[in-house]
Amino acid sequence: MKNKILIPSLVFVWVFTTTCMVLAKEPIEPIVPVKKINLAESELGKKLYFDRRLSKSGFLSCNSCHNLSLGGTDNLKTSVGHNWQQGQINAPTVLNSSLNFAQFWDGRAANLKEQAGGPISSQMEMAFTHTLVIDVLKSIPQYVTEFKLVFGTNSINIDQVTQAIAEFEKTLVTPNSRFDQWLLGNGDALTEDEVAGYQLFKQSGCIICHNGEAVGGSSFQKMGVIEPYKTDSPSEGVGAVTGKESDRFKFKVPTLRNVELTYPYFHDGEAENLTEAVDVMGRLQLGKEFTQDDNALIVSFLKTLTGDQPSFLFPILPPSTDKTPQPKPFE
Amino acid sequence: MKNKILIPSLVFVWVFTTTCMVLAKEPIEPIVPVKKINLAESELGKKLYFDRRLSKSGFLSCNSCHNLSLGGTDNLKTSVGHNWQQGQINAPTVLNSSLNFAQFWDGRAANLKEQAGGPISSQMEMAFTHTLVIDVLKSIPQYVTEFKLVFGTNSINIDQVTQAIAEFEKTLVTPNSRFDQWLLGNGDALTEDEVAGYQLFKQSGCIICHNGEAVGGSSFQKMGVIEPYKTDSPSEGVGAVTGKESDRFKFKVPTLRNVELTYPYFHDGEAENLTEAVDVMGRLQLGKEFTQDDNALIVSFLKTLTGDQPSFLFPILPPSTDKTPQPKPFE
Repeated sequence: MKNKILIPSLVFVWVFTTTCMVLAKEPIEPIVPVKKINLAESELGKKLYFDRRLSKSGFLSCNSCHNLSLGGTDNLKTSVGHNWQQGQINAPTVLNSSLNFAQFWDGRAANLKEQAGGPISSQMEMAFTHTLVIDVLKSIPQYVTEFKLVFGTNSINIDQVTQAIAEFEKTLVTPNSRFDQWLLGNGDALTEDEVAGYQLFKQSGCIICHNGEAVGGSSFQKMGVIEPYKTDSPSEGVGAVTGKESDRFKFKVPTLRNVELTYPYFHDGEAENLTEAVDVMGRLQLGKEFTQDDNALIVSFLKTLTGDQPSFLFPILPPSTDKTPQPKPFE
Repeated sequence: MKNKILIPSLVFVWVFTTTCMVLAKEPIEPIVPVKKINLAESELGKKLYFDRRLSKSGFLSCNSCHNLSLGGTDNLKTSVGHNWQQGQINAPTVLNSSLNFAQFWDGRAANLKEQAGGPISSQMEMAFTHTLVIDVLKSIPQYVTEFKLVFGTNSINIDQVTQAIAEFEKTLVTPNSRFDQWLLGNGDALTEDEVAGYQLFKQSGCIICHNGEAVGGSSFQKMGVIEPYKTDSPSEGVGAVTGKESDRFKFKVPTLRNVELTYPYFHDGEAENLTEAVDVMGRLQLGKEFTQDDNALIVSFLKTLTGDQPSFLFPILPPSTDKTPQPKPFE
């Protein structure tokens, strides 16, 4: 009888301490599921995220470039904007973007709310203005009512629009990846190769920038530390924001969460697949030439970072009215 | 005791006969909810409907022009295609399209399956080829498995792709509009004005073409019967298909189901709102000048045709692999 109590207790103590040790010692932390959300704001934000009437053309929405069906990005090197203009930079994933320390590749927006207003009024992207967006929303009675319910005011302003979109985006975290299951103590969640890939990821120095809950998203780093990065992209990264020579070609380290889904890679989207991305990163950032086998191990680890994708009902949008300004796709 | 049985029986007989009378005498029939569907095919078809990799650019999907968030159309006069090409015709709604007697405005596709292959390979629209679509799908193991499960074969072909999309589209009917509730015997479902609008719709002759389950979609008619229709649109309708002079400017009568959501109207999208559409239809097709009041009554009836919109989880798509051909948005 004593044994019957003792053994489970010992197993418990062992599991508990092992779990704590794993949690304590690993530089990557499991994604915490969303615990605090303004659901009313988020539901409104979901509609706005999918509403193409936030663009001049009536054809582009947030979801056009940050597609929640596949990795929260458009899976293109650079994005398609108004009038099929070619964007200058690869669309970063919206998944887990609430975990980033700043938004955009160059960090020019402090948070999701500030970010959300950018593409709407960028002439390269949605090509609209904040004023015109408000005109559209005010002309739609169901939106007027919903904004009133959510924000308790009679008017709609761009601050509320970006606030609601940001609140929806906060729901787009992807917990429960196999890697997180392993971090949380389920040793069977990863294969031996995947664990070996993770060890290599740490030992090689990738972990220096790609760590924490988002496995990145917490610092700016120069693209091309050991060797310069050759690219046709005109993007100068943080340098273009601060004007400092020392910030040229510094970009936000992207999250590696769901990296299997967020191809192609880098700020210019030039790395088509993970093998190429790992190879370039090894050489340019760490001065390491990974063997084919080591590269494959690291890639196998990276693929364990795919978490539960956001699951929601496709939103039904309120119709325009006779008073709604017409979209202008071909002007 | 006798009365207790007799009265409910009488009520039943009254309700039953009234319902039958209503059902029997009205030229519009309630939409029947989907009763027979191949769910496996439809779930695969839903993914394909939203998968932008069915286009050359990797940026356009079926949902780009037939947006299920808002009326199953793009709410633009004419659509945006590959490289922002301006389409020549207004995108018809996909909602209830299974009820149409033929597909496209000119009826050149006999059914949804035949229709689905069109835009994929149209250089104005998705600008891809059927062969390249199959190359993409074959490179994605999760699709290979799903096609195998659904169709029981080891290969993927365009016939299966369009079959699955069509099966999904069969689920996109919108029963339970207020008008259908009224047809089914709930007298309170419509206001007096809405019923008066319906009577006017019938008396004025609109019902001659807009009848049946889809309130349209069952015949070709000439656009401009009494007066010619003036338009810059180059579309010649059925005439371009048959080569017959008598078919010039004949178009499929569109469904009026969800017409509140499917603005703008007509094959050229030139009618911005329902008031304008009713006015033009009255003058050109029926030789009637509706008064402002009568026009408003008809519009109020038309808005009762909005049914339950399709409700489904936004699909998560399987990622591409290293072998997947790259999208070419800017070539």
